[in-house]
Amino acid sequence: MEQEIRVCIYGATGYTGAELLRLLHNHPRARLVSLTSQSYAGKRLSQVFPHFKATPFGEIPLSEEPEEDFDLAFLCLPHEASLELVPELLKKNKKVIDLSGAYRIKNPTVYSQYYGFEHTHPELLERAVYGLPELFREELRKAELVANPGCYPTATLLALYPLLKHSIPFEWVVVDALSGVSGAGRKTAQRFHYPEMEGDAFAYSVERHRHVPEMEDTIRRVWGRDVRLRFTPQVIPMVRGMMVKAYVRCEEEGYEELYRETYKEEPFVLTLSEPPHIKHVVGTNYAFIYCYYDKETSLLEVISLIDNLGKGASSQALQNFNLMFSFEETEGLLQSSLYP
Amino acid sequence: MEQEIRVCIYGATGYTGAELLRLLHNHPRARLVSLTSQSYAGKRLSQVFPHFKATPFGEIPLSEEPEEDFDLAFLCLPHEASLELVPELLKKNKKVIDLSGAYRIKNPTVYSQYYGFEHTHPELLERAVYGLPELFREELRKAELVANPGCYPTATLLALYPLLKHSIPFEWVVVDALSGVSGAGRKTAQRFHYPEMEGDAFAYSVERHRHVPEMEDTIRRVWGRDVRLRFTPQVIPMVRGMMVKAYVRCEEEGYEELYRETYKEEPFVLTLSEPPHIKHVVGTNYAFIYCYYDKETSLLEVISLIDNLGKGASSQALQNFNLMFSFEETEGLLQSSLYP
Amino acid sequence: MEQEIRVCIYGATGYTGAELLRLLHNHPRARLVSLTSQSYAGKRLSQVFPHFKATPFGEIPLSEEPEEDFDLAFLCLPHEASLELVPELLKKNKKVIDLSGAYRIKNPTVYSQYYGFEHTHPELLERAVYGLPELFREELRKAELVANPGCYPTATLLALYPLLKHSIPFEWVVVDALSGVSGAGRKTAQRFHYPEMEGDAFAYSVERHRHVPEMEDTIRRVWGRDVRLRFTPQVIPMVRGMMVKAYVRCEEEGYEELYRETYKEEPFVLTLSEPPHIKHVVGTNYAFIYCYYDKETSLLEVISLIDNLGKGASSQALQNFNLMFSFEETEGLLQSSLYP
Amino acid sequence: MEQEIRVCIYGATGYTGAELLRLLHNHPRARLVSLTSQSYAGKRLSQVFPHFKATPFGEIPLSEEPEEDFDLAFLCLPHEASLELVPELLKKNKKVIDLSGAYRIKNPTVYSQYYGFEHTHPELLERAVYGLPELFREELRKAELVANPGCYPTATLLALYPLLKHSIPFEWVVVDALSGVSGAGRKTAQRFHYPEMEGDAFAYSVERHRHVPEMEDTIRRVWGRDVRLRFTPQVIPMVRGMMVKAYVRCEEEGYEELYRETYKEEPFVLTLSEPPHIKHVVGTNYAFIYCYYDKETSLLEVISLIDNLGKGASSQALQNFNLMFSFEETEGLLQSSLYP
Repeated sequence: MEQEIRVCIYGATGYTGAELLRLLHNHPRARLVSLTSQSYAGKRLSQVFPHFKATPFGEIPLSEEPEEDFDLAFLCLPHEASLELVPELLKKNKKVIDLSGAYRIKNPTVYSQYYGFEHTHPELLERAVYGLPELFREELRKAELVANPGCYPTATLLALYPLLKHSIPFEWVVVDALSGVSGAGRKTAQRFHYPEMEGDAFAYSVERHRHVPEMEDTIRRVWGRDVRLRFTPQVIPMVRGMMVKAYVRCEEEGYEELYRETYKEEPFVLTLSEPPHIKHVVGTNYAFIYCYYDKETSLLEVISLIDNLGKGASSQALQNFNLMFSFEETEGLLQSSLYP
Repeated sequence: MEQEIRVCIYGATGYTGAELLRLLHNHPRARLVSLTSQSYAGKRLSQVFPHFKATPFGEIPLSEEPEEDFDLAFLCLPHEASLELVPELLKKNKKVIDLSGAYRIKNPTVYSQYYGFEHTHPELLERAVYGLPELFREELRKAELVANPGCYPTATLLALYPLLKHSIPFEWVVVDALSGVSGAGRKTAQRFHYPEMEGDAFAYSVERHRHVPEMEDTIRRVWGRDVRLRFTPQVIPMVRGMMVKAYVRCEEEGYEELYRETYKEEPFVLTLSEPPHIKHVVGTNYAFIYCYYDKETSLLEVISLIDNLGKGASSQALQNFNLMFSFEETEGLLQSSLYP
Repeated sequence: MEQEIRVCIYGATGYTGAELLRLLHNHPRARLVSLTSQSYAGKRLSQVFPHFKATPFGEIPLSEEPEEDFDLAFLCLPHEASLELVPELLKKNKKVIDLSGAYRIKNPTVYSQYYGFEHTHPELLERAVYGLPELFREELRKAELVANPGCYPTATLLALYPLLKHSIPFEWVVVDALSGVSGAGRKTAQRFHYPEMEGDAFAYSVERHRHVPEMEDTIRRVWGRDVRLRFTPQVIPMVRGMMVKAYVRCEEEGYEELYRETYKEEPFVLTLSEPPHIKHVVGTNYAFIYCYYDKETSLLEVISLIDNLGKGASSQALQNFNLMFSFEETEGLLQSSLYP
Repeated sequence: MEQEIRVCIYGATGYTGAELLRLLHNHPRARLVSLTSQSYAGKRLSQVFPHFKATPFGEIPLSEEPEEDFDLAFLCLPHEASLELVPELLKKNKKVIDLSGAYRIKNPTVYSQYYGFEHTHPELLERAVYGLPELFREELRKAELVANPGCYPTATLLALYPLLKHSIPFEWVVVDALSGVSGAGRKTAQRFHYPEMEGDAFAYSVERHRHVPEMEDTIRRVWGRDVRLRFTPQVIPMVRGMMVKAYVRCEEEGYEELYRETYKEEPFVLTLSEPPHIKHVVGTNYAFIYCYYDKETSLLEVISLIDNLGKGASSQALQNFNLMFSFEETEGLLQSSLYP
């Protein structure tokens, strides 16, 4: 009989939790045993997400603490909650995939500056493997703690990785990023109230966003150099999907070939010869990447598309899960996008 | 010099307040002197609604109580707040247009059943004029207190009025109604969070909705008979706009002619010979009405479209304002819809 | 080794074709061998639908005629094209699931009246099995030609079936139906141009719609009586999803129990005790059904939700496919909806 | 009596025509006398745009040629049609505001390269005044032919103008631009079909777009230097609105003050201290501008928002109209945005 991993989701009632549930429903090797939720403890899953009524998951109770023993936990929790829970779980020999930012950055001082808390377990930062398989696949196969990347860093790092890998030099990069509203989470807010968000779009955190040090830190580790990043996140009126455009000033090269070559063996990164559409990746674990070098300005422009809840969060977490347990890396992840 | 009315808006920071502000900005006879807001007192209007930065209104302060004397107040308040404020204002000889439901129904016992409070000023219910000009124009010209109708009742009553006026007999009516999300107000809620409302639609309050007694009460007064109403309100993923379909079982008649005749002098009701589109009334004070008699089933179907924030709330309030002060009834209301 | 069925899709480049492709991609028993397309013959699938680039389907050529032999054909063609192709395929001993309306109605005279053509193969109408498993499951297991139902009839018949099955008498029914825009197909049209459809909603074909005789015909066969139907289809600004509200005047009964009882063994019909949300069925083969009896008006109101491209077209076709080949009825159909 | 200008709109049935009609309806000095349309000649306006049924405009006939004499023509025509019509109208002493690109660029050779035609009236290019009042107000007061700017150039030039005016040196600029779908016009296209555009976003014309030479040409004239422009237009799922982000590498300066100072007397340009929302300018003639200088990267980022059909087309045309006839520049343009 095939191995089955007992899985617990902490914080199952947010959007990344819901997306994990959707994917685990079709994953043959994961057995969901427990769901936690602070806000909805005492209810059953289908009382929060009625669409799961149509699945066996609908009857699973939501509890403050896991009700059954498990092998791996997905943490869909606030940063501070993950920060404290991770060491406890590791101590009990549980494997952990943390979807928060609590263990993504190697330099603990960043946390006080960007996250508003002192990092209480800096010794674990080195042990955490950054969950971007295209950059850290081998480490992920042996990881016990995976820090699952943010959505903006995932799209941006995949846009820049061929340059980093091939040591193309540049000084700064403009990262202009569009996100669907689900990226802001399930908690209601005035500006995401339907009548205000419909027909609207806006930039935010222009001065600094907490995903910037995550990107800078990872670029430094891969490239061996520092980069300066001008990052402008924007919300546009769609539910899911993310488009990052990275502008880099650099010497001419055969970039199209370089990108194709870098990703040709990757199961979830496609390089395209025309600008892709966000809708084509929604609901999937794919990244679609396009690049264009403009001789006039000596600017390389790279467009990178993902689903912020997919490759930008939950399906990437499942890809990491597959790696950690030596399952087929694409297991449960080959659905094509819901189109139209 | 032309007469100018000093106007105060109570509760200016909800959607009906915002729409009134937009309309008053282009009304030559209304002078806005005060804005109240409980939640935002101390701020200026443009801090809540940045789009008014482009107008002189942006600098108006929001205060708990009106800061200047006024002739008329628009009340964009919760029902309970209007209930208590109306008698105070009338005592001070202010004219009042109340956009809440507090004074819409003649029978005070309805309030405890549908609104959850005892009506504390039943003596004012008879004095309040129901602000549907097509039904009560002459009373409105002399009104001191106008109970501005709800959006569902406005669309439904305009759909049925030709039948009521001509004493067409029927026993019951199915009212199937679609509303844009702005009808639910500016307060955030999980189901109106953009990622959940986009691509969704649902019925609610199927068992009973507080607009039902408002419709029944007004029908009884106009028609002299009781009607039984099956009312199903639904939210669809659009910001503004409302479509009511009324199904009535009745004898054959020349209904198309009856409808055209009834409304031919009305400045804001258009009868059409094809099913109209919601988008054509958005941002306006118009109602577009279409009817079809089906011999097979002996059912008359009437489709009635309005903007829930326009004819269903704020622009209708301004139409009533024009009537109360003997201004041209269409003053400030002849903008056409923003299309596309 | 498990049996594998060789499948051809005729007319693969419309929305029902795209949805079938998405589903077949995860169906272990179907092997896609050929795709036809008149408009795109000569191209590869991914040139029309770039999102299939991420799957092995992307490279499949589109040709005017099937390029390989097959066991079963899904016809995603215009009515007239299906009409002529079906007898040819049956003659060659192919099984056929026809998603057009060409073989849905037993009475051939309906076609000249509602479809604008004379039915040239009336002898096949009796042989065609109407592909609604909840009503005709046993016939479907033996079918060689399945007439896959329209989306409006699917939602409406599932709403009415418990009444028909239990011989509840009624004379007429109001069917008020909302559809996502994908129901109108992939061909562009002015009113479905994004800037015009966004923020719009409208009724159409109020006088008569070709789905009416399909519903009447099926009701007659199941119920043994004639019904008169007032049907009002409407388009609302969403891509996928359908909500039918059926209003029936009838005696009081324990309808909630009757509905639950009727559908309790059905894998794809859920009865709910609160009005459901369209978003919960999008991307799935589920129908969500809710009913409410209103004593005041003696009206039973039934709300029935499906995905117009799912249970209303392609996933229902796959359910029929499973039945025809004695596979597990739910095979390839247990995905939960993409939420949010 | 006040002066009244007789106006003709050529090509009245596209989106810029519709928006002009909406605005002219509330302009006291413009009298609409003729509407032309090639596709709809013989119909009345309300047969194409039913929302004008509610206005006196609805009955105006659409004809191939203007039916009455006029003083000024707005040309909402394809580039090639404008190209030939402009000299004819000027010869007849008509004033012309051309919303196409046919007379926007001073260098005629650009047309063969970017527009696909030889410019047949290069002698008129110098005579045409580029209709951006913030840059060319005085010339516009005396203009007989106004080349009304494109939407992308309007937003971009307003973003850069303070730098140009104050001779801030820089070498290149990244212009990353988001547009609502109405910018693509009223003609249907597969990718703008509602089911495909909803939930989608994509870049296009990344290699070159015909608005680039228009921007470069105008920058050169104002600044006296050449600039190199990396321009990436993108469509996002909203009807109206445009957000341009311009990234310029330059020395530190007090840019916020520079921008405020430059625009402080402008009636339609607002500088803000926080990133603005597209929704706040929809339906208006306003541009909202925000800038931020990032010391780390030495990049100045400017965000510029307009309504692509407003300041980006029709309301800007009306602003030019006001200037040409010495009316109050803001006449008919002070409506605030439809919110929510």
